[in-house]
Amino acid sequence: MVVFDVLRATTTMAAALAAGVKEIRVFEDVESARKAAGEFGRGSLLCGEVGCLPPPGFDLGNSPGGFAPVHAGRTVFMGTTNGTRAIVAANRAKVLLTGAIVNAAAITKQLVHRGLDVLLLCAGTNGRVAMEDVVGAGAVIAQVRKRADCELASDAARMAASLFEALQGDLQRVLTEAQGGRNVIAAGLQADVEFAARLNMLDVVGVVRGGVVRRMC
Amino acid sequence: MVVFDVLRATTTMAAALAAGVKEIRVFEDVESARKAAGEFGRGSLLCGEVGCLPPPGFDLGNSPGGFAPVHAGRTVFMGTTNGTRAIVAANRAKVLLTGAIVNAAAITKQLVHRGLDVLLLCAGTNGRVAMEDVVGAGAVIAQVRKRADCELASDAARMAASLFEALQGDLQRVLTEAQGGRNVIAAGLQADVEFAARLNMLDVVGVVRGGVVRRMC
Repeated sequence: MVVFDVLRATTTMAAALAAGVKEIRVFEDVESARKAAGEFGRGSLLCGEVGCLPPPGFDLGNSPGGFAPVHAGRTVFMGTTNGTRAIVAANRAKVLLTGAIVNAAAITKQLVHRGLDVLLLCAGTNGRVAMEDVVGAGAVIAQVRKRADCELASDAARMAASLFEALQGDLQRVLTEAQGGRNVIAAGLQADVEFAARLNMLDVVGVVRGGVVRRMC
Repeated sequence: MVVFDVLRATTTMAAALAAGVKEIRVFEDVESARKAAGEFGRGSLLCGEVGCLPPPGFDLGNSPGGFAPVHAGRTVFMGTTNGTRAIVAANRAKVLLTGAIVNAAAITKQLVHRGLDVLLLCAGTNGRVAMEDVVGAGAVIAQVRKRADCELASDAARMAASLFEALQGDLQRVLTEAQGGRNVIAAGLQADVEFAARLNMLDVVGVVRGGVVRRMC
């Protein structure tokens, strides 16, 4: 299974892993993340958001651009109001990867290599489908189909692939107009939307085991 | 509210109304339709499907091409395994119209004329989204936006409009590849899929009141 929360949890995870963090411990809410980071002590990096913004006392928000090589080796504690919940909810999947537009090609490589049936889970926002997640899933589907025989098992998958193919030339505009993009921009975080729309920019895949995201070897 | 069950209930309703039937009485299942038609007696026209095909003893199936001017003035009793249920479920809407690809322009005209907030309900199949319904809703959204200022209140609406705009040049292929199209074709009813994909062919709108669909004056 691949979980997509393009704005912004899974994009931020890809950025954090690309920056070289050791691992990302994922929590259903910010208070649980705060508590666990406190118990962990030195070396923890506490990040997350409420209403798009970093909660008081957090080291970082939920912005992919917030991670840099200076964070290499750190243990990230991450809690958000929406995105991390999907990952926690999906923890029974046999293999669980974190996907986004920025690492769609890297995810594709893994899926083609493994050759298994795949479920792409679009996290959405407050129970509603989010366009950027569907476009991210569509990017993976479209790229997998270029590289391997694969059967689309649902109209949802067909629609995601068609949407990506139609809109790939202007993902910046798509994410800016999506409801999630509007919310992030309204919070003053336009750069996060621009980051999230950069197709195939990061050659990194996160794999989740026991609520911890690590970079796949 | 506009309900879409493009393959095939709302397409068939548009065809029946265009053929001049007096009204279509909608039932949640075929047995209820059969019973009501029996009680009505002469002049009833019993139509519907189970597993895509007309049940034994029914006058017609759920094929839009089955209706012709010879049926003008008849009272239709319609029960299906899926499509009519959405209409019955939506019966609390203030105004309920039946939409399809074949009458998207006629629906658009009504919505622009009324200028109200609109919810487009995609019936789907067995609880899963059906691509042809989303494309039908997208056809209406795209056409409304050409004629009037309108705000899209959800990413689902944005995706439907984008999908239609990307795929409108080859709706026959889209419906043939969608799961619903495959099912209908597997039942030997390719002509129904071809009918359902003909954009703006029928200048007719069905309005539902108390479980009865009539042609809007």
